Amino acid sequence: MDIKEYIRENESRFLDELFSLIRIPSVSAEPKHKEDMLACAERWRQLLLEAGADEAMVMPSQGNPLVYAEKRVSPDAPTVLIYGHYDVMPAEPLELWKSRPFEPEVRDGHIWARGADDDKGQSMIQAKAFEYLVRENLLRHNVKFILEGEEEIGSPSLNAFLHEHKDMLKADVILVSDTSMLGADLPSLTTGLRGLAYWEIEVTGPNRDLHSGHFGGAVANPINVLCGLIDQITDEDGRITVPHFYDDVEEVSEAEREMIASIPFDEQKYMDAIGVKALKGEKGYSTLERNSCRPSFDVCGIWGGYTGEGSKTVLPSKAYAKVSCRLVPHQEHEKISKLFAEHIRSIAPESVTVSVTPMHGGEGYVCPISHPAYRAAEKGFAQAFGKKPLAVRRGGSIPIISDFEHILGIKTILMGFGLESNAIHSPNENFPLDIFRKGIEAVTVFHREFDNAIRQ
Amino acid sequence: MDIKEYIRENESRFLDELFSLIRIPSVSAEPKHKEDMLACAERWRQLLLEAGADEAMVMPSQGNPLVYAEKRVSPDAPTVLIYGHYDVMPAEPLELWKSRPFEPEVRDGHIWARGADDDKGQSMIQAKAFEYLVRENLLRHNVKFILEGEEEIGSPSLNAFLHEHKDMLKADVILVSDTSMLGADLPSLTTGLRGLAYWEIEVTGPNRDLHSGHFGGAVANPINVLCGLIDQITDEDGRITVPHFYDDVEEVSEAEREMIASIPFDEQKYMDAIGVKALKGEKGYSTLERNSCRPSFDVCGIWGGYTGEGSKTVLPSKAYAKVSCRLVPHQEHEKISKLFAEHIRSIAPESVTVSVTPMHGGEGYVCPISHPAYRAAEKGFAQAFGKKPLAVRRGGSIPIISDFEHILGIKTILMGFGLESNAIHSPNENFPLDIFRKGIEAVTVFHREFDNAIRQ
Repeated sequence: MDIKEYIRENESRFLDELFSLIRIPSVSAEPKHKEDMLACAERWRQLLLEAGADEAMVMPSQGNPLVYAEKRVSPDAPTVLIYGHYDVMPAEPLELWKSRPFEPEVRDGHIWARGADDDKGQSMIQAKAFEYLVRENLLRHNVKFILEGEEEIGSPSLNAFLHEHKDMLKADVILVSDTSMLGADLPSLTTGLRGLAYWEIEVTGPNRDLHSGHFGGAVANPINVLCGLIDQITDEDGRITVPHFYDDVEEVSEAEREMIASIPFDEQKYMDAIGVKALKGEKGYSTLERNSCRPSFDVCGIWGGYTGEGSKTVLPSKAYAKVSCRLVPHQEHEKISKLFAEHIRSIAPESVTVSVTPMHGGEGYVCPISHPAYRAAEKGFAQAFGKKPLAVRRGGSIPIISDFEHILGIKTILMGFGLESNAIHSPNENFPLDIFRKGIEAVTVFHREFDNAIRQ
Repeated sequence: MDIKEYIRENESRFLDELFSLIRIPSVSAEPKHKEDMLACAERWRQLLLEAGADEAMVMPSQGNPLVYAEKRVSPDAPTVLIYGHYDVMPAEPLELWKSRPFEPEVRDGHIWARGADDDKGQSMIQAKAFEYLVRENLLRHNVKFILEGEEEIGSPSLNAFLHEHKDMLKADVILVSDTSMLGADLPSLTTGLRGLAYWEIEVTGPNRDLHSGHFGGAVANPINVLCGLIDQITDEDGRITVPHFYDDVEEVSEAEREMIASIPFDEQKYMDAIGVKALKGEKGYSTLERNSCRPSFDVCGIWGGYTGEGSKTVLPSKAYAKVSCRLVPHQEHEKISKLFAEHIRSIAPESVTVSVTPMHGGEGYVCPISHPAYRAAEKGFAQAFGKKPLAVRRGGSIPIISDFEHILGIKTILMGFGLESNAIHSPNENFPLDIFRKGIEAVTVFHREFDNAIRQ
């Protein structure tokens, strides 16, 4: 039976199974859903067994449990490890939902519910492609599943779990459906992610808040100083001034720049959507390059002095900022973190004390488009969507992807089927049924083509 | 009877009277003390009558009432208007007081209580000097008293009151005891105050908080922009870059600079007291010049983005700052306010929207040391303290003093007897008894010498 037919015949069951997962409000951010996390993990265990896994289990971690399943074809065959997550974001504000977030509904050809896309829907695509291959006896490599329950809260327990279960998780490639495409008619694969470094800066001036009349003009004001420090981090061309910051930056290749330039992108629409009259960024790069392939420096938060109603004159003792850099592949976040802290200290005037505290960070990620699994994914998209997918780097950071690379030594293929309009993390999350079908088809092709490539 | 003898004979009554005022907790910042404000005003009315006023009354205003009293000597004689305030700052934190703030106590030659200096103690100096002159029949000019009950909350009702009672308040000079001397052995008169202009700046970038991964590097971050704007307001020499900002600034004369240089001032002690390792200010001026005779620019408060625990990556929609300039005599705060707002708007990049809202402001003040009343005050200090007082400009702003000049057209002599160690606005406010005595003596000399000068 071909995959299209298989989907047609089984779709109502697929949806019933997906809905059974969605009805469990597995909101990892809220402790009251502890029981739901367990129930959802258990439901996945059953579903993966039914889909064809030899074994499936719910495994403890320092936080919520993970679901592990595997189908062994042969010890000599390659292995694909599929990662997903069963936890979801809180559904609030509830009043903005057209139907209840945990009571899934099909309307206008979309599934509407929290988790319809992220990541219950997308993980179900993987599970159902796997089921088809097992039932039709088409699987020629081993498949493992690992589904975590803390992705939406930053995967705090995953790192330790990976270290502890390196052997169990051995694989040739990791496949993840948890990202988006450029559009329903613009299939794309995410080939790069930015890294992140994050610091808190504390500037201390006088040992107490001073009267700005009695001291103003003679004593350095820590807020003024902090603003000066922040302003010095980028130059007029929008480049970061920290010495050696760009040393490891992978320059965007001409080929990639051409590819990026070919992405349909309406700058005016982009500006209208976020309500700005002009864009701003590093000289010599386009907007899409700036927000995906180039590092950036943003103040995420700033505070100090009097911030209440009206006007109070004060020369404050302290000023604070939370600042971050998005990094690009090959920039090591710990190295950047040190360079930045040293630089801030070196430019800080003697009239204040400055401390820079590194917060969390993560490396960027890049998947070479020559990777056989990437090629297989490309063919999957091409068959299902009738178009060769674009290879795009994304500006965000998914630290677990670089963890996979660093801890397990495995490259990840980000074969995501999301759309911006799916409203993940927002009210009225949804997933178009036709993308759900195309996704399953694309993944079956991936497995076939991955086998072909490996066996050549 | 000479004044020293008069004080000796009457001091215990003076203190009883002062204590009766102090025991009324006339805290203008706290609505629960509404009744106390009335009681304190009424007590002052009685005391001024007893001290020798022809009439005294409690007069309504838009806020707390004012006390007005007058002694008419002759319609042809000049008039001295004495200003003071009967309200006090809150006493909190109470646990830091060694004795109860509204239960005055004499210890180690000091009066300890909220208001012992500011301004019940200092106003009492004026009242008792007046009493002596009346009783000894030495008064040759008219004296008026005006005591307000809202000085500690910014005198919100005084402006309207001055406009409404211009005639009643007619005088040749205003005398105020509500400032400090350089030290107990360094008598000084305040001859200048800085003005103030205050703004709130709001920088709006995108129409909502954005994901700093997806947008960082391509979209202007309003906090980064705000820091840049603030940093541009002062140049490397610590000068304010707003065009025409210095146009009306009165340059400090060589004579005044010499006088300032002669003030005993230990920069290391100054730094130690506020806990900084270096000072910072406008190039070419000393610390004492910078904090009194030169304009300054301080950020009083700043906020925007994520300011909670930990790290959240966000490219925020908004950033805010409360900023102020201390101004020097001849700079008009409304003109500066406009120049500043125009300048900020002119340097703001197109990628954000910037709004600048002027908050309160006030002009600086300068009293020429050739003014006959200034000379009289100088002689008062010289006799009481055995030393000619220094003429010093102060960096703070007392907007009512410039209001007196602008609304009533009268110059003010700031004949204050406070000391830094008197801890006004802080726990354990106090006033040394010997300064209290010298103050009364100095004020009696002022009245005598003012008469002499006027009649010459």
